[in-house]
Formats: sequence, structure tokens, C-alpha cells
Amino acid sequence: MNDKLEVTAAALAIGDELLSGRTRDKNIGHLAQTLTSVGINLKEVRIVADEQSEIVHAVNALRGKFDYLFTSGGIGPTHDDITADAVSKAFEVECIYDEAAMELLAAHYKSREMEFTEARQRMARMPQGASHIDNPVSKAPGFNIDNVYVMAGVPKVFEAMLNNVVPTLKTGQKLLSRSIPCKHGEGVIGTPLGVIQKDNPDISIGSYPRFGDDGSFSTEIIVRGLNVEDVDKAADDIEQMLANLG
Amino acid sequence: MNDKLEVTAAALAIGDELLSGRTRDKNIGHLAQTLTSVGINLKEVRIVADEQSEIVHAVNALRGKFDYLFTSGGIGPTHDDITADAVSKAFEVECIYDEAAMELLAAHYKSREMEFTEARQRMARMPQGASHIDNPVSKAPGFNIDNVYVMAGVPKVFEAMLNNVVPTLKTGQKLLSRSIPCKHGEGVIGTPLGVIQKDNPDISIGSYPRFGDDGSFSTEIIVRGLNVEDVDKAADDIEQMLANLG
Repeated sequence: MNDKLEVTAAALAIGDELLSGRTRDKNIGHLAQTLTSVGINLKEVRIVADEQSEIVHAVNALRGKFDYLFTSGGIGPTHDDITADAVSKAFEVECIYDEAAMELLAAHYKSREMEFTEARQRMARMPQGASHIDNPVSKAPGFNIDNVYVMAGVPKVFEAMLNNVVPTLKTGQKLLSRSIPCKHGEGVIGTPLGVIQKDNPDISIGSYPRFGDDGSFSTEIIVRGLNVEDVDKAADDIEQMLANLG
Repeated sequence: MNDKLEVTAAALAIGDELLSGRTRDKNIGHLAQTLTSVGINLKEVRIVADEQSEIVHAVNALRGKFDYLFTSGGIGPTHDDITADAVSKAFEVECIYDEAAMELLAAHYKSREMEFTEARQRMARMPQGASHIDNPVSKAPGFNIDNVYVMAGVPKVFEAMLNNVVPTLKTGQKLLSRSIPCKHGEGVIGTPLGVIQKDNPDISIGSYPRFGDDGSFSTEIIVRGLNVEDVDKAADDIEQMLANLG
């Protein structure tokens, strides 16, 4: 694939509850599908606990390696929400009560006749110089600093924030894909498929086994590439190979 | 918490399909729940693509940092299944066709009157010196080398292999937890909850917001710790705090 066209990203999900099994992450799958659909290549995902040193380490490793880093979790009002502090530390800037966020939240709680508590004020904290990611669900904004986008862990809020972020991103050429169903198991097609992969270095061929309840095997073969002619050529090669197998 | 009692682990899920959004990972959540239930603390998760350098880097980073590393994916018969090679490279040992695995698979395919193809033989490959993880679903074994457990990506097979691994692991003291429902949103309880966390350094308090469709908020508070007296004391503090809020 043409490297010039590739835009890469990583995801970092933050939260003890994801690692204890209490909560099954839903944001990574959604992010993966969304990024793929706009031509951004998600290359790595990490999940870490609510520990500052772990978050700082992961943020710095991933933001330096990929075009974008998207985080989820840890920006709520409680003591275990430490993502704003950790991202500030990763960037070596101060974590401040952002003035615009304070005004936004003060007005929001006033309109609902709710107290703008010390805990709620924590949600206005972000690294100095960060810009807001609007939150149409529950108001408290996410934030963006450099190539890092910090969003909420609650899926409804994460998805709404991501909707606001995506149109602002640079995107690469969309990966094209063709799916080829195959009645054979991987053990039958594995070797000829490997030969076709070698013959078609500009595309990526994946094969995904399915196990039937009756003990049967079948396979879905997916061809991915940036160029329609390359994808079609490899898919044709695979279909020819399958026809020869009978 | 008492560090002497803590047994730590990491998970590494391998596969382009997880990063493209084609497949939503199911193994991490299952692993997290299983490890927690036996007293092993899952501390970090990574997902990487089917690229040798990425797998090697992640395996070496995680196996050195935690007591155990569990991987899923990339041990099938096709060209994109490169986990055995990558783990061998990470350990700087040769990736061999394991003799016992070859015998096992040869007998398996013979009994089913299926050809033991070159592709199927790939599933006998593992680092020299590795031991098998039995696969009651589809026979081809996973493997264990040092503190790394390499298992299949297909959830049914991953779960069956994990069932065979868990009884062999050293386990720490099980984390005890108490869940306290709370009708208030995090913005109301955040500050007093933070005070209680500071007063109870040996336990970990998490709070998890719930958003009702009517725009209401509630919270589940979870207290976790190794010692029942510590957990009960913190939970009592929280219930007292909630009673005072009315």
C-alpha cells in the first residue's frame, strides 16, 4: 500500500472496570469501524487501569507513534477520573480549570437548578491549551491537545464526541475490501491462499474461520487494498483458486 | 493492597480484523472476568495487527512487566497466522514443527479422512521448548513458553484453552468487592467519595455512572479490596455518606 496515503491511529481505553471484567468495552469496536469507514487505519489499542503512570506511559508511546490517539474514559467528576491530569502530565503542561468549560458547566447546572459542585467542576479540568470536544449528551466536554483526542467512557457520550471529532480529521484513502465466502476450511485453502498473497503484495488477504455447531468449518476470505484494480485482481485469483478446488 | 499477594497479567489480542472493526473482540472481556474470579489482576491489554514487529514488541513489553501474558489470535493455518513465529522471535528461539503436535494433528485428520495439508501442518508450529495447551474444540494446540500463554482467537477455542490453563496458574488473593447502588449522579457524590477513598487507602473505590433515557443519572459504587474488614469499613462509610445526603 502507498504509505503516503496512510493515516494511522491508536486507541487507549482507560478504566479499572474494563480490566476487572465488570464492564465490557464497547468503544474500541465502534472506533475501529468509524475510523476504517473514513480511511484512518487503527493500528494499536491499549487498555490500562486508572493509574497515572500507566496512562502517561501509554499516551506518550502511542501519540508519538501514530497520527492520532483517541482515548476513552476517566474524565468524569470522581476521584478515580484522572485522565485530564495524566494527559497534562504526558504533555508536561499544567492541568487547569478551563475557563470556557467552567462557564459552560455553570450555566448548564444553573439551568437545571442543580448545584455546580466541586466534583462537577472537576469536569472542566484539561491541559492548558487544549480545545473542547463538544458533548451533546451530558455537556461536560472532552478535549483535544495536539494529536490526542480525550473522550468519555460512557458509550453514548463517546460516540457523540467522536461524531464531532471525525469531520475535523485528516483522512487517508479508504481501504477497499471484497468478501469472498468459501465452503472450505482454512486447512484446505491455506497454502494456495498464501501463494496468492505473495503474488499480490499490494493487497492484504485475511481469512476468518467459522465453526458450525455440527463440527463443520467454512471460511470468509477478505481482500483489502487501496486500489480497486489490485483488489479485483486478487479476488479474481482467489475465486479461480476456489473454482479449481471444486 | 498487599503487593506480595498480587499476581498480575496482561492480554494481547492479535489480528487485523479487530482493528478494522470487522470483528469485535470477545476474548478480552472473558479473560478479564475469568482472571478476576481466580485472583489474578489483569493490568494491561493491547491489540495489535498481524505484523511480526508489532507482535514481538508487544510480547516482550508485556511478558517482562507482568507475571503472565495471555495472547489470542494468529495460530491458524493461513499465511496471516504469524503468532507462533513472532513469539519465537520474541524469545529468540527457533519456531519448529513440534513433533507431538504433528502426531496429534496427523492422527486427527486421518481419523476424519481429511488430508493433513501443508497449511494444517502450520498449526503444529511453535517455539522450541514450548508445551501444549490442549484444544478440545478443534485439536490444534495452543502453547505455553515461560510466562506466555498463546491461544486461539476464535472465542469458543480461546475459552476452552483458557479453561485448561487456569488451573495451572499461581493465583493471588481474590479481590473482594461490594456494590452500592446510589440514586445520585457522580456530580453529587464525587467530592465526599474522594474523601472516603483518601481515608481508606487499602481499598479501591470506583463509581460508574448510568444515564437514564429520561436524562436522569444514577451511579453504581464499587468497593474493592483484599481484606473483608477493609472493604466493609469503606462500604459502611459510603452508605453513611449516602444516608446523610438523604
